[in-house]
Amino acid sequence: MAQSRQLHLGAFMRPVSLHTGAWRYPGSYPDANFNFTHIKSFAQKLERAKFDAFFMADHLAVLNMPVEALRRSHTVTSFEPFTLLSALAAVTERIGLVATASTTFDEPYHIARRFASLDHISNGRAGWNIVTTSNPDAALNFGLEDHVEHGERYRLAREFYDVVTGLWDSFADDAFLRDVESGIFFDPAKMHVLDHKGDGLKVRGPLNIARPPQGWPVIVQAGQSEPGRQLAAETAEVVFCSPRDLAGGKALYADIKQRMAPAGRDRNHLKILPAAFVVVGDSVEEARAKRARLDSLVHYDSAIASLSIALGHDASGFDPDGPLPAIPETNASKTGRAQVLKLAEEEKLTVRQLAQRYGGYSGLAFVGTAQTIADEMEEWLSGEGSDGFNVVFPYLPQGLDDVTERLVPELQRRGLFRTDYEGSTLRDHLGLPRPENRFFP
Amino acid sequence: MAQSRQLHLGAFMRPVSLHTGAWRYPGSYPDANFNFTHIKSFAQKLERAKFDAFFMADHLAVLNMPVEALRRSHTVTSFEPFTLLSALAAVTERIGLVATASTTFDEPYHIARRFASLDHISNGRAGWNIVTTSNPDAALNFGLEDHVEHGERYRLAREFYDVVTGLWDSFADDAFLRDVESGIFFDPAKMHVLDHKGDGLKVRGPLNIARPPQGWPVIVQAGQSEPGRQLAAETAEVVFCSPRDLAGGKALYADIKQRMAPAGRDRNHLKILPAAFVVVGDSVEEARAKRARLDSLVHYDSAIASLSIALGHDASGFDPDGPLPAIPETNASKTGRAQVLKLAEEEKLTVRQLAQRYGGYSGLAFVGTAQTIADEMEEWLSGEGSDGFNVVFPYLPQGLDDVTERLVPELQRRGLFRTDYEGSTLRDHLGLPRPENRFFP
Ligand SMILES: Cc1cc2nc3c(=O)[nH]c(=O)nc-3n(C[C@H](O)[C@H](O)[C@H](O)COP(=O)(O)O)c2cc1C
Ligand SMILES: Cc1cc2nc3c(=O)[nH]c(=O)nc-3n(C[C@H](O)[C@H](O)[C@H](O)COP(=O)(O)O)c2cc1C
Repeated sequence: MAQSRQLHLGAFMRPVSLHTGAWRYPGSYPDANFNFTHIKSFAQKLERAKFDAFFMADHLAVLNMPVEALRRSHTVTSFEPFTLLSALAAVTERIGLVATASTTFDEPYHIARRFASLDHISNGRAGWNIVTTSNPDAALNFGLEDHVEHGERYRLAREFYDVVTGLWDSFADDAFLRDVESGIFFDPAKMHVLDHKGDGLKVRGPLNIARPPQGWPVIVQAGQSEPGRQLAAETAEVVFCSPRDLAGGKALYADIKQRMAPAGRDRNHLKILPAAFVVVGDSVEEARAKRARLDSLVHYDSAIASLSIALGHDASGFDPDGPLPAIPETNASKTGRAQVLKLAEEEKLTVRQLAQRYGGYSGLAFVGTAQTIADEMEEWLSGEGSDGFNVVFPYLPQGLDDVTERLVPELQRRGLFRTDYEGSTLRDHLGLPRPENRFFP
Repeated sequence: MAQSRQLHLGAFMRPVSLHTGAWRYPGSYPDANFNFTHIKSFAQKLERAKFDAFFMADHLAVLNMPVEALRRSHTVTSFEPFTLLSALAAVTERIGLVATASTTFDEPYHIARRFASLDHISNGRAGWNIVTTSNPDAALNFGLEDHVEHGERYRLAREFYDVVTGLWDSFADDAFLRDVESGIFFDPAKMHVLDHKGDGLKVRGPLNIARPPQGWPVIVQAGQSEPGRQLAAETAEVVFCSPRDLAGGKALYADIKQRMAPAGRDRNHLKILPAAFVVVGDSVEEARAKRARLDSLVHYDSAIASLSIALGHDASGFDPDGPLPAIPETNASKTGRAQVLKLAEEEKLTVRQLAQRYGGYSGLAFVGTAQTIADEMEEWLSGEGSDGFNVVFPYLPQGLDDVTERLVPELQRRGLFRTDYEGSTLRDHLGLPRPENRFFP
């Protein structure tokens, strides 16, 4: 019971934060993208705060944006996830390590090997965030002229998952005898040759890696479309998502969980963790001021494009320091437009401030004191809006320290978050069962 | 002068050694294939001994052998190189980290990213051992029915190298301004879009990683065929090879180095490091006894097959405990046969011992005291047989300790090996220049 009423917390990381203005925030590390020492300290702090996992997003191309925005963006380059998380595995002991890898642009034999190897190196702390890669520019880096079509990407993702998990099951858990006396190292009867021949993939196997300590690394999914949700219900053990508010969170939560029983799965074997941007202050006003300061570091030239996209209307002619003018409703982007109007009214933001919000980070945000944020998180948890959160830090290291030193203790005081790890693997932290080996049950 | 007269030493690693009997040797770690703690201690010891590099071989399939040999082999499964070397990067500071990656079964964008990322994480210690993958079973794990033909593999390898190095040059070294005041993170004029469209590969770029600290990670090559040597002369900065004796070493050394000038390269910018199996004893007899003991741990059933292959003649009917009988000369494998006969005569080995030698490790070996081995290494270096060695340890940890604690001090006493690192990158250790950026010279 205690277990089911506790939050799971992941850290959704970019070395300099996801917020585009963060590298300019006082005290930030503008060079963190390639500074392992900084990232190591972030992971170690998150481990001391008992986070479930360190989660690394990934993209397979320089993000396509107008040069005015691009040259101001610290997201243009950063570490590759397998190498970074493996390095972090060596300097942490308990925190889970979730890497993003694409089923559209990589080979199942490589993916199976690398995650299995990371799981061995970390003693059972690996997770695979399965993405189908929505960025069309990625295709051009992998020999294709056009992006693979959306439905086909998801069909392939499902087959890819079957192959990778099948490769992880290549050896029985007790295949390796290592009997020095007789000289028998392992029992070949406990090795399975997958010999997969499917619509999209042909992979013989066996994998040249012993079964991972977790059986399989934890399966994570972040797709939101209809096929994305279905894939999640059939395969995922963690869903990363980005609902905008509690109502949206509840709807998504209910939808994904209700798809599980028909897929033959137990609804407790999947944890739904929305991304949440968290800014902690001594007072709600102070937290809002921090956020406003951060937003103000987003350059207007790059910000206004984001606002225009959200509005479905060119905003570049508006008075930056005036209120949002009345604009005619269009067919494009009705929800986006409604959200902007709501935000403009609620927070009384100027056009510049709105643009900077959209150009910075515009997803679900908890901005307040440790108490008000804990209240909100509790409401999400008890209301079945989520099973916890993937925390997005507004800037680093200070925004992370505010969470680990102020919010986490408040959550722990309320019994909403663990005060220590109970097990040693990521599956242990998430309360997920170890999968049976399909070939050696 | 001191520099050019010194040996370069790499460690050619498999967690339990390359020798097939090693896991049964007293004091060995039979579970080292998936025990990171052991491997970390090996890498740290090698770093204290000032080795140039830790080198990780790699295969993309479970090696195809008869079940009798397979079940006795500790080489069936082990860590994947990118994940392992990245983890080692976090717990070492100076030693180079060379990973094997295939140009036949991976994507240049992934390879470029992972090595660049490893180079950033390790502050300039990455090397890429380019292999074309000779094991035909690997093809079956990557969707192919048949192996890619040898010449075609090397043609593709050359194009793959051009693409990967081109991607590493995506950003000028000074592209990242990170000017907090003006908000300019980088200068897009210092980003190059590769837009490669070749015979075998189409890759747009740019890489989403800043230029590696070394410019390019060190390029290593281990092919021995005619196209392999040519590729090495054109591209490699280190060649790993396996001559059987000094005469063979000199011939290979001369051949590869003389191909460099026509390729427009300086012959000092490539270091040739043969694999050398090193067994150190207090006396030559003790060293030989250690090796004999190790060889005796190779099971006869798996050993005899290796001897038959080397002889080009079925040896399974021979008396295991008698001398090698006279056998008719055949056309198959003349050199192999001559080597076996020479060895049988020199070391007076029985059929069983010969079989166990071939089933264990049959390449170039230095077996003796620290003094006799240092003499031999000195002879190779001064005679232009090599620029150093890739040491193969007979068993671990003891065989490694014997090298670092006994052989290395003897080499240092003679001025043949460094007593401390002079620089911090793998290029520094090897005395290799940092490549210019071809797009931003
Ligand atoms: C919280 C979150 C994190 C994501 N992280 C990544 C990522 O790191 N790399 C990536 O290619 N896509 C990422 N995505 C995108 C999803 O994988 C997916 O492409 C996107 O949500 C569109 O979903 P759909 O393809 O099902 O329509 C992420 C999505 C969410 C909601
Ligand atoms: C010392 C040494 C180490 C090698 N390591 C690997 C390796 O780790 N993985 C691999 O696929 N091939 C490895 N090879 C094989 C070579 O890449 C190459 O395929 C082989 O030498 C045959 O050469 P060729 O293809 O030029 O005929 C190694 C070869 C040597 C001599």
